Amino acid sequence: MDAYLELTPRLAELSQLGSVMGILNWDQEVVMPKGAVSARGGQMATLTSLYHQRATDPRLGALLAECQSQEKNLDAWQKANVREAKRTYDRLVKIPADLEIALAELEVRGHEVWVQARLGANFKKFQPILDEYLSLLKQRAQAIDAHQHPYDVLIEDYEPGMNIKKIEALFLPLKDFLIPFLNQLLSRKNSKLTKVPGGPVAQSVQKELGLLILQQMGFDFERGRLDTSVHPFCGGAGPSDVRITTRYQDDHFVSALMGVIHEGGHALYEQGRNEKFYGQPVSEAVSMGLHESQSLLWEKQVGQGVNFWEFLSPKLKTLIPHALKGAEVKDLYHFVNQVKPSLIRVDADEVTYPFHIMIRFEIERDLLGGKILVKELSEIFNQKMQNYLGITPPNDREGVLQDVHWSGGTFGYFPSYTLGAMYAAQFFATAKKQIPNLLTEISKGNLKILRQWLKEKIHQQGSLYLADELCIQVTGEALNSKYFMNYLSEKYS
Amino acid sequence: MDAYLELTPRLAELSQLGSVMGILNWDQEVVMPKGAVSARGGQMATLTSLYHQRATDPRLGALLAECQSQEKNLDAWQKANVREAKRTYDRLVKIPADLEIALAELEVRGHEVWVQARLGANFKKFQPILDEYLSLLKQRAQAIDAHQHPYDVLIEDYEPGMNIKKIEALFLPLKDFLIPFLNQLLSRKNSKLTKVPGGPVAQSVQKELGLLILQQMGFDFERGRLDTSVHPFCGGAGPSDVRITTRYQDDHFVSALMGVIHEGGHALYEQGRNEKFYGQPVSEAVSMGLHESQSLLWEKQVGQGVNFWEFLSPKLKTLIPHALKGAEVKDLYHFVNQVKPSLIRVDADEVTYPFHIMIRFEIERDLLGGKILVKELSEIFNQKMQNYLGITPPNDREGVLQDVHWSGGTFGYFPSYTLGAMYAAQFFATAKKQIPNLLTEISKGNLKILRQWLKEKIHQQGSLYLADELCIQVTGEALNSKYFMNYLSEKYS
Repeated sequence: MDAYLELTPRLAELSQLGSVMGILNWDQEVVMPKGAVSARGGQMATLTSLYHQRATDPRLGALLAECQSQEKNLDAWQKANVREAKRTYDRLVKIPADLEIALAELEVRGHEVWVQARLGANFKKFQPILDEYLSLLKQRAQAIDAHQHPYDVLIEDYEPGMNIKKIEALFLPLKDFLIPFLNQLLSRKNSKLTKVPGGPVAQSVQKELGLLILQQMGFDFERGRLDTSVHPFCGGAGPSDVRITTRYQDDHFVSALMGVIHEGGHALYEQGRNEKFYGQPVSEAVSMGLHESQSLLWEKQVGQGVNFWEFLSPKLKTLIPHALKGAEVKDLYHFVNQVKPSLIRVDADEVTYPFHIMIRFEIERDLLGGKILVKELSEIFNQKMQNYLGITPPNDREGVLQDVHWSGGTFGYFPSYTLGAMYAAQFFATAKKQIPNLLTEISKGNLKILRQWLKEKIHQQGSLYLADELCIQVTGEALNSKYFMNYLSEKYS
Repeated sequence: MDAYLELTPRLAELSQLGSVMGILNWDQEVVMPKGAVSARGGQMATLTSLYHQRATDPRLGALLAECQSQEKNLDAWQKANVREAKRTYDRLVKIPADLEIALAELEVRGHEVWVQARLGANFKKFQPILDEYLSLLKQRAQAIDAHQHPYDVLIEDYEPGMNIKKIEALFLPLKDFLIPFLNQLLSRKNSKLTKVPGGPVAQSVQKELGLLILQQMGFDFERGRLDTSVHPFCGGAGPSDVRITTRYQDDHFVSALMGVIHEGGHALYEQGRNEKFYGQPVSEAVSMGLHESQSLLWEKQVGQGVNFWEFLSPKLKTLIPHALKGAEVKDLYHFVNQVKPSLIRVDADEVTYPFHIMIRFEIERDLLGGKILVKELSEIFNQKMQNYLGITPPNDREGVLQDVHWSGGTFGYFPSYTLGAMYAAQFFATAKKQIPNLLTEISKGNLKILRQWLKEKIHQQGSLYLADELCIQVTGEALNSKYFMNYLSEKYS
């Protein structure tokens, strides 16, 4: 089919431009000299504008329409490829160019103002930025689909097929479970260890440990790297060039290690994508929640599991004997899985983490629904922290200003974290059923067996199925919170 | 003037795309995982094609023509900016797209075949590639200007305003001087040191030394980096992001150091460009020879000068005491300036180096002039080596296949190296006249005084003047070989 043959090089070109921006992002976070910030901004703006021109080219729209009208000539992969490309195209062309430019401009300014406001723990300073975002994002949602709740439209950017109603249906039972569960856990006495035992661990040793575990997980160093950056991330330029980063604290080697395993989970997804469709949308993850499921599965289900620590223990004794001084591996395992309400989302344990997400989800939903106002946000945030977690942030820096997301206009992403945790539990429960002796294999460090299963069942599938369908394909059930609740119950009871 | 106001953002966009490619090149040479080679090829091809589309956009041509027709409204810098942009545009639009594609394709294939041919020291294998290049390059030259010698057209890519006749006029007196001069030097006994004294020097210590010298030269680390790569280069993304590389040999710290100083010279040019015109062609070097003059001035005139070694000696004694074991600084200075005919151009000393260039210049001129054939090249190369340097390469790997240039279709670049050496000598002679006690200052490590002079006189001037004019502006004379010959005479007599 001629239209499809003309379509795929255009999609590959967009993917290549995306990869180039991926390298520039990595470069900026990892190696770029400080003085290049402003020039880099110009380079990215130029690339973004060229990308946008190509991505909204009417010829691309015509080809997509033609492909869809002759769908019967395409196989399932090709159909899914057209579906994904068309969804992106249809959204993009609806957004007026001046609105996109205004949002891009606000992103730069918003980030700067947020940094300053956060430093001074002064939400008032950031308030006007949020007001501007709300106005622009509502216009954006309106342009894409005037009939939907604007927050539903934004959520679609990250979780196609999701919406407020579905998320509420998933979060509600979890909330009902977690509130008494947390109280019950808090009434027990905590792990004896409140900080990592032993002396400091040099960054080079921590890196060696990270590389070892990545190797064990099946990370391919011919097609990827591990580096250091202020904010850990998984980026790069697609399946053959997957770059993850972590950050090191001398007195907390577990933090960097868990970071490496988390980003390693994202990396395995990327490296495991279907080679036949590299550069085509269908080879990419169908949602952010699904991508996050891979990092959380590796970090929480595997990396913070007791079997993994059985494998890790002799390695630790060799690599960093002093870090285990006076502590049994069992103690370290309990330390890693300590549950305690805390102020900062990114540092939260897996039991209290969903509350941080629910707070942000409710705030975003009500802001975009016009039920609350930006100027009330500091107070509302603190009130919700008190209601859900029983603690009140002492200031805005540790409260409403803590996350970078809103400073970049990212509204609708937060739910993906907890959706990811649910997917992770559901996938891992299935893996345990399908892979003989999975936990015993993990105790032996045989992690590649799990990697292979994930690759076949999830990474290779890309966007062939929508997220709902994929979940049913893999686990036999639609996504639900049962597996995540069972997992927490079993682990912490 | 409206046309000029519309022109400059277009030129800035091209510069930004060029900067992006600069980062991708650096990335590929320094950090990219091996498995990403093919994907990176695709990314570069996409960028190159977008660049070409924008650079040959008829609207750009119309704006340039309009600016030139209303030149009276522009100041000298703006005029020069239009002149440079128009020269590039006029050349680009004349070249048929399919010819450009054929050359780009041959570049990839040619490099691969060259690597194999070189490994096997087998010129015959590379011969068909060279034949293809000659045919395509002649077509390219014909398309640009059918009335000129095709080699003259190619030289213009690197040295606007230069041609065979002018280069011959510059090279001839140099050749007449160098032949007896070299014989005279060879009849004297050589430096006592034939290898670097002392034990191996760790890469980290060599890097520390390099950083120290760069600092001393005035390299701005807020706007640049030093890294390691197989082939040293100066790249990056323009004045605010200048990245140089070197390579380290444990048993030859002087080699990496001189490499750092050489690339540092290029880097100072880039960092010293006129900020008012960043992103515009007029802020760039007017020729490759002028850029090379900066690296050679720092490497040869300064770094291999006796005054610099006076400054370096106490530093060396502190940083790498064992490397000076049994050797006086004077011995090291003589070792660094050893003259001896040798097979490999990139390892040649400054006295024999011009012969390597003359050999390549004559071969390129005669190939494109149709006076010699590709199949005769191995023999001709060896014959010329014997004639000029009194040595015959034992095989093609150390002979005609040694340089990467022809494998990428780069014909016409070689003369820039020796033009650069001549400019360097002429500039440095002027600097000595104009900067009080320059040599004494160098002995004290006060190198920034020279950097400042170069910045004002050369780096800041960009392409405001053509190369000829700039040389007269700076030195009061057109480029000539007299200063280079005087410099060699004084230094080695």
